[in-house]
Amino acid sequence: MDPIVVVGGDAAGMSAASKFKREQPDRDVVVFEKGEYVSYAACGMPYYVKGSVEEFDDLLQVAPEEFIEERDIDLRLHHEVVAIDTDAHEVTVESPSGTSTQPYDQLLVATGARAIEPPFDGMDLDGVYTMHSLDSAKAVRNAMETHEPESVAVVGGGYVGIEMAEAFAEHDTVVHLFEMLPHVLAPFGEMVGEKVEAHLRDEGVELHLETAVDGFDGSGGHVETLVADESTYDVDLVLVGVGVAPNAELAAEAGIELGETGAIATDEFGRTSAPDVFAAGDCAEARHVVTGEPDYVPLALTANRAGRAIGQTMAGDETPVGDIAGTAAVKAFDLEAARTGIIDEETAREAGFDPVSVTISSTSRAHYYPGAKPIHITMLGDRDSNRVLGAAMVGHEGVAKRVDTVAAALHTETTVEELSYFDLSYAPPVSPTWDPVLTTAKVLNGKLD
Amino acid sequence: MDPIVVVGGDAAGMSAASKFKREQPDRDVVVFEKGEYVSYAACGMPYYVKGSVEEFDDLLQVAPEEFIEERDIDLRLHHEVVAIDTDAHEVTVESPSGTSTQPYDQLLVATGARAIEPPFDGMDLDGVYTMHSLDSAKAVRNAMETHEPESVAVVGGGYVGIEMAEAFAEHDTVVHLFEMLPHVLAPFGEMVGEKVEAHLRDEGVELHLETAVDGFDGSGGHVETLVADESTYDVDLVLVGVGVAPNAELAAEAGIELGETGAIATDEFGRTSAPDVFAAGDCAEARHVVTGEPDYVPLALTANRAGRAIGQTMAGDETPVGDIAGTAAVKAFDLEAARTGIIDEETAREAGFDPVSVTISSTSRAHYYPGAKPIHITMLGDRDSNRVLGAAMVGHEGVAKRVDTVAAALHTETTVEELSYFDLSYAPPVSPTWDPVLTTAKVLNGKLD
Repeated sequence: MDPIVVVGGDAAGMSAASKFKREQPDRDVVVFEKGEYVSYAACGMPYYVKGSVEEFDDLLQVAPEEFIEERDIDLRLHHEVVAIDTDAHEVTVESPSGTSTQPYDQLLVATGARAIEPPFDGMDLDGVYTMHSLDSAKAVRNAMETHEPESVAVVGGGYVGIEMAEAFAEHDTVVHLFEMLPHVLAPFGEMVGEKVEAHLRDEGVELHLETAVDGFDGSGGHVETLVADESTYDVDLVLVGVGVAPNAELAAEAGIELGETGAIATDEFGRTSAPDVFAAGDCAEARHVVTGEPDYVPLALTANRAGRAIGQTMAGDETPVGDIAGTAAVKAFDLEAARTGIIDEETAREAGFDPVSVTISSTSRAHYYPGAKPIHITMLGDRDSNRVLGAAMVGHEGVAKRVDTVAAALHTETTVEELSYFDLSYAPPVSPTWDPVLTTAKVLNGKLD
Repeated sequence: MDPIVVVGGDAAGMSAASKFKREQPDRDVVVFEKGEYVSYAACGMPYYVKGSVEEFDDLLQVAPEEFIEERDIDLRLHHEVVAIDTDAHEVTVESPSGTSTQPYDQLLVATGARAIEPPFDGMDLDGVYTMHSLDSAKAVRNAMETHEPESVAVVGGGYVGIEMAEAFAEHDTVVHLFEMLPHVLAPFGEMVGEKVEAHLRDEGVELHLETAVDGFDGSGGHVETLVADESTYDVDLVLVGVGVAPNAELAAEAGIELGETGAIATDEFGRTSAPDVFAAGDCAEARHVVTGEPDYVPLALTANRAGRAIGQTMAGDETPVGDIAGTAAVKAFDLEAARTGIIDEETAREAGFDPVSVTISSTSRAHYYPGAKPIHITMLGDRDSNRVLGAAMVGHEGVAKRVDTVAAALHTETTVEELSYFDLSYAPPVSPTWDPVLTTAKVLNGKLD
């Protein structure tokens, strides 16, 4: 029988390969990875640049040797799949030793995403980076340590932009953060955005909101200035982090359907439109648990669990990849922000809901207990069904894992009233008697009546 | 119309009174409180003794004047209800000005619980305390600050015992902790108990497990020694914290039914067996969400939300008091422990389940992120239905709010497999990619297959 073939050796691909081999140790699994790293912690890159993750090797979760020797996976580094023939059930592979074809019994496309490179002038100058590979993380940290730039610009106020601003600030440099939209962290909503902005300013970040970057200049081939809205800023290093785009071209060229988001369309088992071809991770869509519609939220957990489920399905035990809730968390210096589900009324209306939202402030611990910090929560509910639609929250502690309770409510189609009656944990050092999530649900339920 | 009458002015009673008045501002509400404090933070008492809550007044959440003047509640301090006549719809009240009767339209019994006083020799010696009133907290802190005892004994290794051990240790005294059972924190299970014990020992607490205290001696009327299992320990102060018992006598004498637990039996709206009489808080039972059976778990949130719901029901808007999951958290020095649902196999089997459990260790943050701490989780599932039954966990951070995700699963009758697919938050500073709860559910699901 032809082997299972996996294209791409990061979270989704290696999870699938490992799971399949555990279930079917006698079958062959071939993984083609075009680079030299597999299964790496992309989310840790900002902390490597910051220096709080000291060693580069700490970002490598499982060594290639372990996959090859211990898990018996035929992992081939520096092998790029350049074509898929879905009729012939084979892929074309380019490697240092030439071009070859590899037949497959079943195929997983796990080609990931890439950093979007906007058409700025001067994108190719030295000192201008995007952050979507371990090599770029290495290069940026090296630049920070060897050139000690006086001034750094971050373009984009999403997760990566915020985390990189924190990383650069650790190196005692002036940090400019440019965001085109009125607020940073758009997917977290305005309330969270404003709190994070205030905190970034407190931490010394020079924030430029509603500011469109035009490009970069540099006389000697190295970036020296950034131009935005007709102002010029002296900068020694630029990090462009304006989002990612799915690597869906390989699939598209093979005639595999893409979804409206531009990522590869999949069913609940991760199957694509082509027989025996699956897709997972940052190149694929997933179904949103609130809307029931395909969505594109390229995050690590989604990739890991879809890969694992597909490994199991390919091994004969059909397993859904799981819905996503768009749950996300980010730390910005000392502030934690988190979100899940649908948190803006316009998106909720587009999905057919009649949304009502409230924002409340509470505390992370009993108000009298030392170290209690404010937590701010916005929650959305549907007037017709009373269902919880989503929440965003921000505070100095106890935020990310509080959003999980709301995520659980989304997965179980819990009403706002039901959520307000969950028996959540309480002790003075960890929560007020009514957890802030309960208080928010209680207030929202009153508004939904 | 006769007023609403509430017996007891703490969490359940004042929540009910306040909610009723908001809904029906023109009706009268009379609250009888036998002591001088209302709505106080009993859970904060250990931290007041410790000194981390500095001011006594910080434990008083809402002043009596606010209830009287702002919320227009007829609150009568130093008034003890000594009898209920459920036929005549009236209560008999003793106060400094004599005995009187008060008719009621509807009545809430919110008489709370009291610290159990075991029949130890010498319980009446000076320096022997229980901890179930603000006055005892005041007295214990005063004793610690003025007499600076060299050695203190805590009898009982439950929440109060653990929290008081921490409080005493802050005063630079030798702390002995006596527990009859093989492990502290029995409701949290053996795994949590053992971790907490190791941590208590690290913090210098002298732990005496499986050790039955016989009593206390003191020549001059003040405690000097503790006798346990034929050994004698020099102690200058003793705190007995072996649990609480519901103050259900008033209701029982009125012919109101008690449940098997000894607390007042109630229906889903908090109604007792007597017409127009409700009960809530530490004197009443509540329905357990996993077993569907009445249970007695006297905790703050249960009291607050039942009181609030009953206030609403009494005002004409019938509102269930909500099920309990037995969710609880406790901090022991630097360690956090939490539990929810059913966590031991024997209890699960008695409730008709076929339990399977796993224990896993993970980390609070991405393993490579600085400050990541171990988290240990035991989770129970039912083999027949795949339902989540409960979990207990312990670690240095991020524990209490992680148990909430499991509590949410219990309230929604989620299966272990479904829980393993929840889209929970991830960022390196706050969680591994697979949150420890997900990892536990994944492993447990494998064992349930």
